[in-house]
Amino acid sequence: MTTLDEARAMDAGDALAPLRARFAAPEGLIYLDGNSLGMLPADSVAASADMVTRQWGERLIRSWNEGWIDAPARIGGLIAPLIGAATDEVIACDSTSVNLFKLIVAGLREAGRRDPKRRVVVSEAGNFPTDLHIAAGAVGCVAGAELRVVPRDGVAEALGDDTALLLLTHVHYKSGARFDMAAWTARAQAAGALMLWDLSHSAGAVAVDLNGAGADLAVGCGYKYLNGGPGAPAFLFVTARWQAELANPLSGWMGHAAPFGFADGYVPADGIERWLTGTPPMLAMGALEAGLRLWQGADLTAVEAKSAALFDILLAAGTRAGLECVTPRDPAARGSHISFRHPEAHAIVQALIARDIVGDFRAPDVARFGLTPLTLSHEAVWRAGEALVDVIATGAWDRAEYRARAAVT
Amino acid sequence: MTTLDEARAMDAGDALAPLRARFAAPEGLIYLDGNSLGMLPADSVAASADMVTRQWGERLIRSWNEGWIDAPARIGGLIAPLIGAATDEVIACDSTSVNLFKLIVAGLREAGRRDPKRRVVVSEAGNFPTDLHIAAGAVGCVAGAELRVVPRDGVAEALGDDTALLLLTHVHYKSGARFDMAAWTARAQAAGALMLWDLSHSAGAVAVDLNGAGADLAVGCGYKYLNGGPGAPAFLFVTARWQAELANPLSGWMGHAAPFGFADGYVPADGIERWLTGTPPMLAMGALEAGLRLWQGADLTAVEAKSAALFDILLAAGTRAGLECVTPRDPAARGSHISFRHPEAHAIVQALIARDIVGDFRAPDVARFGLTPLTLSHEAVWRAGEALVDVIATGAWDRAEYRARAAVT
Repeated sequence: MTTLDEARAMDAGDALAPLRARFAAPEGLIYLDGNSLGMLPADSVAASADMVTRQWGERLIRSWNEGWIDAPARIGGLIAPLIGAATDEVIACDSTSVNLFKLIVAGLREAGRRDPKRRVVVSEAGNFPTDLHIAAGAVGCVAGAELRVVPRDGVAEALGDDTALLLLTHVHYKSGARFDMAAWTARAQAAGALMLWDLSHSAGAVAVDLNGAGADLAVGCGYKYLNGGPGAPAFLFVTARWQAELANPLSGWMGHAAPFGFADGYVPADGIERWLTGTPPMLAMGALEAGLRLWQGADLTAVEAKSAALFDILLAAGTRAGLECVTPRDPAARGSHISFRHPEAHAIVQALIARDIVGDFRAPDVARFGLTPLTLSHEAVWRAGEALVDVIATGAWDRAEYRARAAVT
Repeated sequence: MTTLDEARAMDAGDALAPLRARFAAPEGLIYLDGNSLGMLPADSVAASADMVTRQWGERLIRSWNEGWIDAPARIGGLIAPLIGAATDEVIACDSTSVNLFKLIVAGLREAGRRDPKRRVVVSEAGNFPTDLHIAAGAVGCVAGAELRVVPRDGVAEALGDDTALLLLTHVHYKSGARFDMAAWTARAQAAGALMLWDLSHSAGAVAVDLNGAGADLAVGCGYKYLNGGPGAPAFLFVTARWQAELANPLSGWMGHAAPFGFADGYVPADGIERWLTGTPPMLAMGALEAGLRLWQGADLTAVEAKSAALFDILLAAGTRAGLECVTPRDPAARGSHISFRHPEAHAIVQALIARDIVGDFRAPDVARFGLTPLTLSHEAVWRAGEALVDVIATGAWDRAEYRARAAVT
């Protein structure tokens, strides 16, 4: 059990502490939801104002030649070092869902071209819903393809000579459990399948090494740990090994080899730009770029170590409150959030929100708390832990207004 | 030929003139590119700052329940009156390209379900490239489907009993020529096909009446005449008649009947929300909503009348300069831009830009000038016309630097 003095001592020795001042944190709020929507970097206020007032308002259409047209690849290049990718293997565009569709269809086609038996996408039951929903839509777009959703402990044996693609979310959105990227990539590839990782809960949360693991494909989210703003553009990764082979089914003009040649026929761009589709939403791209600037030079080993310390503080409190922690204890086996199961998890989260401690409820029974090392002090997490203990011990959660569900829970 | 005094008199009597003050116009710039990227509404500066600083920075994740989750449908409802649709037939999301993909695949499937012979998407050669590129990608996602691209004057005879879908852009991006929406919708439907309109160059440019024409499907762009900001979210329209039948192939979690139920199985939302895919880019959505507020109550008949007057001013100047106008003379047969053909169109446009008169070059030989009645005075268009005459008469365009092409031309 950590004491307040110990938490403060940890803050005093925290190499990442100076980064906290670079966020516009609301006074008095303890925000344990940076894994759902990252906080606002202070620099993003000026960057967004510049995007609106100068780049859009003054420069207008000329801005396309003054930085906009290259933004998706440039921003991809800022994400690359956070996920163990080369600069020209990552591009920022569309939503995670749309990018999943592109890569699942492309992967299915490529696998089928090499071996027509390979028609199955394997994924995990309880994966983040959009992964399964999009995969179901994508298999409907490739003749003969099929989605096989199996329990987590059945994934390995579900791989076979009909598998085209293994789709896994690296860090589970609910439990926080992390797959061993290298081991699972090797397992998928040994079975003859392509490996597609969803990094939504791991990019910026843990040290990711796609190329170290030899991964084929990946997608991820810009608005969580990357602090890119609500609904920020997502990203996708295609290993250099596959870039010439794989084709984007959402073959829009921005992925064309010469978008401003205005030819009727589609010719894909040579590199990662072929994964673009429509015109990028520049206001959202600008905020994502500003958020990523904060990450430049960040030591992901230090980020992981601080995440582990924050986890221990909240785990001790939750345990004291009698809550069941569903997140693995081994730091290498988890991401950067902690989840507790409780039948009244929704009301508990609401009672904490009423005390300005913002976590997340995830249906049906999980209280989830994001541990974002760039924005949280050890003391803040300690205070959240004390509040959690108090809310449970006093039954403060037990109010009808805390049970009532809003549109977004 | 209009004189300066006449142009000023037209401004004095212009009922739309007060709207000009509601845009943040750069001093001295004559912007004839609002059909490519609409100008910045003054209110969008504050709306964007509020989105960043308060909604994201202060309210953080709580904003999803304070207006964000309903934004796509709410913004769709603001677009609906501009295109002759019901409020619940329009939703703002993704890019025009991504929305085209959704509706082409869905339309092909529905047509094929009713009659397996119907497997062909018909479109026009020289349509905006992304329409053709996306259609080519979409037919690759439906077994047996095919794209048939024919010259404009061959579209009618290309419709037959194998046609599933007719895809036309209402106002041509280059020539400005406008299809008769009611006549072409009737023609497509008489042939047994669904009619899909791309309204990118007509929403906010001319009075559009989708339901008056009985149209089935439409998409359009948020960043042109709607002034939603660079790369603003696009929109899509599905007639109430088809909403229960058609399914979104990009079946992401935001289109689920219960996105926060976190179920593995996809169940589409009942209404227009089923066309959502991923998390909406809220910074971009916020600016689009602010841009659309300017349009509320706008009289599209007055907009069309002013557009016609601006056209006449610039046509007279271009004719005096000896340029070939490729835009129809009949206002009902065109949108709200004027295009001239000239082998040195690129250099001419650049020479005008050097004089702070911003138009567009469209390969290979078109100089295109957007006539946006909300942001332009008659006097400004008159001055642009005089400059055009001067640039041609003096050969001011004839410089190597004006011929040099940038990434975005």
